[in-house]
This record gives sequence, C-alpha cells and structure tokens, in this order.
Amino acid sequence: MAKLYENEHPVKAFGWAARDTSGVLSPFNFSRRATGEKDVQFKVMYCGICHSDLHQLKNEWSTSIYPMVPGHEVAGVVTDVGSKVEKFKVGDKVGVGCLVGSCRKCENCDNNLENYCPGQIMTYNGIYIDGTTTYGGYSNIMVTDEHYVVHWPENLPMEAAPLLCAGITTYSPLKYFGLDKPGMHIGVVGLGGLGHMAVKFAKAFGTKVTVISTSASKKQEAIGRLGADSFLVSRDPDQMQAAAGSLDGIIDTVSAIHPLLPLINLLKTHGKLVMVGAPEKPLELPVFPLLLGRKLVAGSAIGGIKETQEMVDFAAKHNITPDVEVVPMDYVNTALDRLLKSDVKYRFVLDVGNTLNKN
Amino acid sequence: MAKLYENEHPVKAFGWAARDTSGVLSPFNFSRRATGEKDVQFKVMYCGICHSDLHQLKNEWSTSIYPMVPGHEVAGVVTDVGSKVEKFKVGDKVGVGCLVGSCRKCENCDNNLENYCPGQIMTYNGIYIDGTTTYGGYSNIMVTDEHYVVHWPENLPMEAAPLLCAGITTYSPLKYFGLDKPGMHIGVVGLGGLGHMAVKFAKAFGTKVTVISTSASKKQEAIGRLGADSFLVSRDPDQMQAAAGSLDGIIDTVSAIHPLLPLINLLKTHGKLVMVGAPEKPLELPVFPLLLGRKLVAGSAIGGIKETQEMVDFAAKHNITPDVEVVPMDYVNTALDRLLKSDVKYRFVLDVGNTLNKN
Repeated sequence: MAKLYENEHPVKAFGWAARDTSGVLSPFNFSRRATGEKDVQFKVMYCGICHSDLHQLKNEWSTSIYPMVPGHEVAGVVTDVGSKVEKFKVGDKVGVGCLVGSCRKCENCDNNLENYCPGQIMTYNGIYIDGTTTYGGYSNIMVTDEHYVVHWPENLPMEAAPLLCAGITTYSPLKYFGLDKPGMHIGVVGLGGLGHMAVKFAKAFGTKVTVISTSASKKQEAIGRLGADSFLVSRDPDQMQAAAGSLDGIIDTVSAIHPLLPLINLLKTHGKLVMVGAPEKPLELPVFPLLLGRKLVAGSAIGGIKETQEMVDFAAKHNITPDVEVVPMDYVNTALDRLLKSDVKYRFVLDVGNTLNKN
Repeated sequence: MAKLYENEHPVKAFGWAARDTSGVLSPFNFSRRATGEKDVQFKVMYCGICHSDLHQLKNEWSTSIYPMVPGHEVAGVVTDVGSKVEKFKVGDKVGVGCLVGSCRKCENCDNNLENYCPGQIMTYNGIYIDGTTTYGGYSNIMVTDEHYVVHWPENLPMEAAPLLCAGITTYSPLKYFGLDKPGMHIGVVGLGGLGHMAVKFAKAFGTKVTVISTSASKKQEAIGRLGADSFLVSRDPDQMQAAAGSLDGIIDTVSAIHPLLPLINLLKTHGKLVMVGAPEKPLELPVFPLLLGRKLVAGSAIGGIKETQEMVDFAAKHNITPDVEVVPMDYVNTALDRLLKSDVKYRFVLDVGNTLNKN
C-alpha cells in the first residue's frame, strides 16, 4: 500500500499522517503532483495545529479519508512555479489556508467567496480535481494553484501561520457583519485559538472588547495579556445581567453545546451573534428575545482568498500575530493531546521547516 | 368594581372585555382619559382580531391584566384633538397599531423604532404613563397621543385595519433585511394573518414568492388567490431538497414549534431566515448549516410609527389589503374560537363602528 502513495504523483514528499480513527500520527512517505502551469510549489516552514485537525483525525465529522496528512495553516517559501503563474516567484514567502480549490464558476467564486463555494476543495482530506486525495501542511512540500496562495508579508513572522485559519475565521465576520467600527462594543466568547485572534482583531479595529468565558481564571489573560477591556464569567448571572444590552456584536468561538440566551441578552437592539465554532448538535434558540430587539444569530466560515490576503496584510501592518507555542514535528501527538485539554496558549505551530526529518 | 373602571377617567366608554383567563369577552363599561394637549380622540370603526389577542386573553404569556379590552389593529375617525396636536383634525381617518407610547428618549425612539424601545406601551394590556391600564380597539372610542397615530389613506378601506399589525410585522423585516429587491426569491412560511400579508408585500416589491406550508391543501390558495409563484409542502423532503439553496430570504410566521433546518437549507449563501412568529419554547438551531453559507436567523417585531405610516401609504398605492372576514361585535367569541382552529381567511375584523351597541 505504501508504494501507492509514494508513486501516485511524480514528486516525492514526506510528512506525518494518521492511518485510522485513533488519530495518532506517524511518519508517512507520499508524493505531490508535478508543478502545473498555474501551480506554486513551496517548502513548508510552519504549520499551525487547528482544533478541527483533531475532529478530522478522529473522523468525528464522518468524512475522514486515511491516510490523512492534516494542516491548513501553512506558511512556506516558494521552490518552483508553473509557466503561467503570475503572482509568485521562487523564494517568495507564501501562505495557504483551508482551501486549495473551488469551482471558479459560481456566484460565490465570482465574488471572491471561494469559502462558500459548494465545490470548494479542502487543503487536506479533500478530493482534488485530478481525483486524488489532498494532503496538508504537516509535510515537507506542497503544490497549490496560485489562486489559493497568499503573499506572506515580509515583516510578519512565519510562525504566525494560524492567521490563515484562526485569523481569517474571526477577521471575516467582524468585517462582513459591520462589527469593525471604532467605538463599537464587541464580545468574544471563548478564549482559545479563535477567540484570542478575535480579541486582537477587534481591538485593532478600535472597538471595545469584552471576553466572555465560563472560566474566571481567564480574566487576567484576557485583559492583561490580550488587551481586552473587560471580562464576563458566563456562569455568573449577576455579571451577565449587569451587562445586558451592552454589546453591538459577539463572535462566539465555542464549539461545545452552550446556551445562546445569555449571549443574546448581552446584545443591544440590532445586535449580532456570530457563530464561528461548529457545535455538533443543534443549540437551543429562544425566538422571542430575537424578535424584541431585531437581533440575529449568524454563522461564518473562514474567508475568501482575497480577504485572506487583506487580513494578513492588515495583521502585518498592525503587528497582530497569534500567540503560539512552536513545537517540533515529532511532538505533534503530544501537542494534539494537550490541545484536546485546551492546554495551549493559544495555538501550537509545528516547526516543519527545521524539524521534519526525511523518513 | 365596575364603577371603578367607569369613573377612572372622565370620558365614558364601552367595549368588550375578558374578565379572566377563560378569555371569554362580554360587554364592558369603562372610561377614557380626557383629550390631552397632544392626544387624538377617535371613534373606532374597525378593529382586527390578531392571533396574539388569543394568547393575551388567556394569559398565555403570563402578563395579562383583567379586565382586558383587546385590539391593536384599529382604524377610526377623529372626534376630538388636543390643543397642541399638529398632524390631525376632527374627521380625519386614522389608524393605531400595537403601540400607544414609548420613552421618546432612547436611541430606538430617536431612530423611529419605538417598537424596540424598552419603555414601549402596548395599546392594550399595558400601563400608560398615568399609571392606568390601556384598553384596545374592541371599544367605541380611543384616546391616543398623536405620535402613535397614523393617517389612514383616503383610498384604503378601513376594514384593512390588520395592516397595522399583520401588515407592518411583515413589511418591516422585508425592508430592513433587504428582502425587497425586485428579482429576489422570497419564501413565506405559514399562510395565516401574517403570512398572507407577507406574500402580498413581497409580490408588490417585485420578488418571486414561494409559500412553504405543512398543508398541501393551501397550494391553490397561495398561488391562485394570493399570487404566489410557487408552493412547497414542508413535510415533503423531495420537494424541499429540490428547492435547496434557492431563496434569498424567508419570512417565517409560524409560532408553533417547528424545525428550522429544512428552512435554512432552502436559503442561498447569505440567505436570511427572519422569524416574526414567537414560539413559546426555544427552537433547535443547527449551527453548521449557518456557517457553511454565512446564513442568519433573525427576529423582527412589528415596526416603528414612521414605518407604519410608510407601509399604509405603500399599501394604498399598491392596492394591498388583507383578506378579511368582517364580523359584528357580538360575534367576537365565535371568531376567537374559529381563529384558534385557523378557520379564517385570513383575518377577522370587527365592524365596531356599526355593531358595537352601548351596554
């Protein structure tokens, strides 16, 4: 079987893959396609570990294909470009996020919203247009259509690769739902990989930020470390009541089952509760509180490629980077175990470029 | 006790009231305040029977005050005006909807959104600024601050009084959520008092309209009588699947518990599901389908006074009237029984002016 993956494409590659629903990763020899006319080949330098990697590694969304090489927060350096590539040259720093393909024909694609294209192709655990399985950034090289590659700003450290998923996932809804206006008051629910980026972007937009968490122990971090303006313990009814009607919008990053009513009550009239986490079961939606203030509950998923470029440029300009713990490739299983316990502030990043050794 | 209500204010009035949670109405002598400086006194000609009257008559929202004179879809003719009234004169046709007061100081009031003012005063079953209970349009006369009174267009029949609740409740969200653009495709869930108005307004805005109902028997009415373009039986998974991703927005008028997922699936990317009915218990909200298309679920409640005036003017211009069954005052209990069984197309209107006899 191993030969199959090594010989599927002409370019030898290696990385770490899970073979089954245990989700345990181990070294994996496979192959990448030759650089096509519009393709960019790049050496992976850093790759973030996203919470969704955990779900997919263990087939919790019932869509997993094994062997699976995860990784969709990938920063690297261009090693080859196709003959018709226009935007990149060898040596450029680049980033690839959650998508490596889409239909390029639908209304969403026309509007630079490849992330909402029904034909979108995920960076890993997807089926590419040539029919082969996609493999992500827990690997030495990637080959990606230039349309799905962003320029990595010169002054942005490449360890900030989690911008490409955690960053855009929080930046995009703040922009789209108009929650980026100076003077607004924004809530961020959950202080993990997504939540801490939401705080940083919302502050950079000039809004007042309140972090809402089940755990009072995060108050010091939220305010002292991340620069939030205030903090609410969601399990404290008195605190929550005192803050009722105070927020223009909320970015809810929590993917566990949780009550929406206390969050809806925090919103002003016309307030917007935007979900970016994806609880596996339906949540309870009280309708009357929505009616009484013309409030809304919405969802948002990552962002389009054009907006991702805009976001990394914005991050570079405003010195916004994720707080990361950089770890070597062979630490990946430990990192995943710790991530499951929320034992990381706030994102693990694999130092692929320096620590991934040929198998 | 009866004397109390007759002598509370200087102006004798009579109507029909419920005395307890049986919700049964019977003749009631009470009184109205003298016409204040900014007040308009008017003879009630027609008053619609809203489904919410049923809930309040039976104290189903646990906020009922008895005796209760319902009615918040009121059309009448001005009989007296206060010294500082600017907009009305004796003989003018007028309308009063769900509200007769608000704080006039908050941001919502400043923005002509009295309907979202926390200090709003309901037309009946409310407490007015003088501390007395408000009584609605199932009565011979009303006295209302001119701010909450609209001009009734000359060519609009006064039997169209349900515009003042059912009309504005559907007009307002179509406008606010941008679902009023010609060429859009709008869904309307439920074909009752609210739903049939949503169809008429959506058609007048130039959108394509699909009615979604649990009952296939309503297809002929929806298309033949109300002018909808198409019809979906919500309990038919094949029909619903075939229409997936086709709607820009949905006005959901159903106040019974019902599943949202099939409706969310009907929406295009960025589609909006707007609830105007108020189920008493929370509904199940699947989050993943919202994320995948940046969709939203929102609520909307009636509309502000300025927009209510705009709506009746629009209705007059476009010959939009509710389909009503006009009934005499002493038919009110029978009408309420029939309304409970959805046995009306689509709104009962009490002919108060001609059939309410002095007790």
